[in-house]
Amino acid sequence: MTITGEAFIGGARERGGAGSFKAWDPTLRDYLEPSFHMVTPEQIDRACRLAGEAFDVFRATSNEERAHFLDTVAEQILAIGDELIERAMLESGLPRVRLEGERMRTVNQLRMFGTLLREGSWLDARLDTPLPERTPPRPDLRMRMIGLGPVAVFAASNFPLAFSVAGGDTASAFAAGCPVVLKAHSAHPGTSELVARAVTRAVQECELPAGVFALLTGTGKGIGQALVGHPAIQAVGFTGSRSGGTALMAVAAARKQPIPVYAEMSSINPVFLMPHALERRAAEIGKGFAASLTLGVGQFCTNPGLVLAVDGPGLSDFCAAATEALQATQAAVMLSQGIADSYHKGVAALAGNEAVSTLARLEHEEGKGAAALFRTSAEDFLARHELHEEVFGPASVLVVCRDAGQMRQVAEALEGQLTATLQIEREDYAEAKALLPVLERKVGRILANGYPTGVEVSTAMVHGGPFPSTADGRSTSVGTGAINRFLRPVCYQNLPDELLPEALRDGNPLAIWRRRDGALTRD
Amino acid sequence: MTITGEAFIGGARERGGAGSFKAWDPTLRDYLEPSFHMVTPEQIDRACRLAGEAFDVFRATSNEERAHFLDTVAEQILAIGDELIERAMLESGLPRVRLEGERMRTVNQLRMFGTLLREGSWLDARLDTPLPERTPPRPDLRMRMIGLGPVAVFAASNFPLAFSVAGGDTASAFAAGCPVVLKAHSAHPGTSELVARAVTRAVQECELPAGVFALLTGTGKGIGQALVGHPAIQAVGFTGSRSGGTALMAVAAARKQPIPVYAEMSSINPVFLMPHALERRAAEIGKGFAASLTLGVGQFCTNPGLVLAVDGPGLSDFCAAATEALQATQAAVMLSQGIADSYHKGVAALAGNEAVSTLARLEHEEGKGAAALFRTSAEDFLARHELHEEVFGPASVLVVCRDAGQMRQVAEALEGQLTATLQIEREDYAEAKALLPVLERKVGRILANGYPTGVEVSTAMVHGGPFPSTADGRSTSVGTGAINRFLRPVCYQNLPDELLPEALRDGNPLAIWRRRDGALTRD
Repeated sequence: MTITGEAFIGGARERGGAGSFKAWDPTLRDYLEPSFHMVTPEQIDRACRLAGEAFDVFRATSNEERAHFLDTVAEQILAIGDELIERAMLESGLPRVRLEGERMRTVNQLRMFGTLLREGSWLDARLDTPLPERTPPRPDLRMRMIGLGPVAVFAASNFPLAFSVAGGDTASAFAAGCPVVLKAHSAHPGTSELVARAVTRAVQECELPAGVFALLTGTGKGIGQALVGHPAIQAVGFTGSRSGGTALMAVAAARKQPIPVYAEMSSINPVFLMPHALERRAAEIGKGFAASLTLGVGQFCTNPGLVLAVDGPGLSDFCAAATEALQATQAAVMLSQGIADSYHKGVAALAGNEAVSTLARLEHEEGKGAAALFRTSAEDFLARHELHEEVFGPASVLVVCRDAGQMRQVAEALEGQLTATLQIEREDYAEAKALLPVLERKVGRILANGYPTGVEVSTAMVHGGPFPSTADGRSTSVGTGAINRFLRPVCYQNLPDELLPEALRDGNPLAIWRRRDGALTRD
Repeated sequence: MTITGEAFIGGARERGGAGSFKAWDPTLRDYLEPSFHMVTPEQIDRACRLAGEAFDVFRATSNEERAHFLDTVAEQILAIGDELIERAMLESGLPRVRLEGERMRTVNQLRMFGTLLREGSWLDARLDTPLPERTPPRPDLRMRMIGLGPVAVFAASNFPLAFSVAGGDTASAFAAGCPVVLKAHSAHPGTSELVARAVTRAVQECELPAGVFALLTGTGKGIGQALVGHPAIQAVGFTGSRSGGTALMAVAAARKQPIPVYAEMSSINPVFLMPHALERRAAEIGKGFAASLTLGVGQFCTNPGLVLAVDGPGLSDFCAAATEALQATQAAVMLSQGIADSYHKGVAALAGNEAVSTLARLEHEEGKGAAALFRTSAEDFLARHELHEEVFGPASVLVVCRDAGQMRQVAEALEGQLTATLQIEREDYAEAKALLPVLERKVGRILANGYPTGVEVSTAMVHGGPFPSTADGRSTSVGTGAINRFLRPVCYQNLPDELLPEALRDGNPLAIWRRRDGALTRD
């Protein structure tokens, strides 16, 4: 296959009409061929209008048809073969094994949404029995979920497959019956093009309207703002920086018709070292923490950028073990020059902060991420908001607290987070119980005796959390729950059976779980 | 009992410190005693902070405890007795029978949420079985919903009981475990005070933290803006005007931490007269429509402010029947002087619109709503946005279309609505099928052969719809689904059983429906 640098609009390749750019190889530090072409406002508008026109047909497909489409997208991605992995390696600097794993994750999550569709309870079908004899009579009421409409998806830089063209946002939007207009990330446009071709082939093979999917290529903020502002777009999925996410939230809120934005933005994922765990497992935790911090050069949304410990037995052992483990790592290529530059700047600011001491800091190398660990006191952390900000990469801050009460006070002062982790022993449970209500208010996922990196794609996963970890803490962007972001309820009152959607008809022809007068039933 | 004109903060009466106002009797056109006192910024802040402090304790109550609390609120409302009905009649001008019915609705919906809590599947509990042998191992993941935090609720003018102090927003927020800071509507402050006392007694009887509920009294926009802007507030429920709702949306979006707003604002609830129904039942539909239009002096969010018909047999009979029925009505007292003035202004603007002809118009009377029906063409309706705007009261516009295609075109041009109604016969089903996908995108509830006024409180009801009918079309403010507005998911990874919430523990101690690896089970 050949990468041509084109966008996909209306099921066909189309050259962007507004200038060109090239991908960057962060390992060799050079531009990659070919040139990619930026789409024009007219092309953005057309992609959105086609998505709007495709919506009614797409959402009218059966659960089985959409599941088959998702399976076909997965097959087409696998059919690209090794070219996909090689191009993604070039564009991201990520190792083969990671990208092969990420491809499997991408394929599995497409199939997971297929399974969800076939099971059918995502429709939240509800039927209230009419009571014609009551005064006033109760009508026949039935409800089911439908898709919101075309979704603008912004691919992430740090998952060129699993949070990109056919990643979790796209899969969950498709599952909900929503067409997707995808803004490719300019750091991996070739990878995006290959996957976009796979999706386009699946659209064709399944005989869906061509407007169900479009890939827009380009750099800068203009495309995203035009996309989110377009009247046909009804929701936004985004993974990226806090500034990028909040800018899109502002555009969405300022529209004539405001729309929901699901932006996953910024999290420092506090790890709480409870006293008995620290005393008993300080060295082990230090090593485990360092491994999680440096995994993938720290380029995960769930990277543990904050550690809290009560001063006491084990703390110095933890510091020693973590420092030793970090110093044994090597600076490694980051996803893009921009990310590497921001990381270096963030680390330098921490090192220069008068309230902070440096426990470990590898030497800076251009374009690479060098691990770093800093230390501060709870008082200083509480007083300095700059210490609460995410530094995207393998850097973390240890906050030393006087006691468990002060640890809770720090937790209470945190902004919203994707995760919080507890290192606990049985003797810590009482303190943990006091801390848990605070954490439940602050984060989407609470872990015990593990590390936050590694986000399982499953039914119970929550990859989300209160602002600013995401734009909308009512949601998850990973796992089956992600479909709920793109759904809304519609109620039908006294509609004749033949005008009702199949999910709500008498006799339950889809054989799905439904609620009758509130009670779950498959009858 | 005596109405004292005070607010309720921290479980105690407290005189507002910022000036006073009186309620207005729209029937006698005079002020009512006593004076009510407006709360100060300090009082607003204190109410919100107490709500924040009460949240963890309140949400930790069991399903049964919160259900009992809701039942107790219901009992306490009934215990007020006739004083409540009499004061509400004075303040709203609504008749006794309507208010007695509304009280029953209010009590029933509190109890309905109690039943929902006892059933337990609102928790959306999910458990994923750990796979320790897999590479990488799958952790133990469990998820449940928790409340968002304190909710600011703005009482509606048009339902002094069912959408007010202990109305649907408050009941669903309480059910979700969220404290409520309630802004009383200045049109019925005495009614609000009586119900606030009932809620406060229930809080005391159930030994809940006093911050679970507060009633703020006052007029103007300042209180609402301070309330929505307060950092402790995590969501907003509002029923009122489009300008009021969008102003609160702007405050919520501009916060340091943006929060969700559920504002129910503006809807003209189109009624589609399909050709065969019109031909066969023109007179009956004309009468039924006029009755729905004038019910409660047209002061319902679901009032049918728009009728669409294809020019043809029956149209003139419909117009004659509707006109005759409307002319047989009488102008009646509206809820407030402001509503009556706005209505009169809206009707006068329609009557003066050069694209509109007047079919029926009762004579204006000060403070009253006089029914009116206007007629325009589809072309004019499409060209003039002012004809799409809600006129709150018993006025409607008939839009005459050339054919079914043009009717669909008008439907496509509508803003988001709470409801759409189809008058259909079997021979209209084909046309209805073509129209339904458009309506599903535009509205929250689709009715056949009925009228949109009358909103059942049940499991399958959707009282919501795309913007601007509500701020957030993903939700309903009536029925059990209303609880979902105030919930968010939290996931627990590898937490020891004794640290897990009861809903997620091994052995299912609450005996609720849960999902294990995606499949619903009660085991």
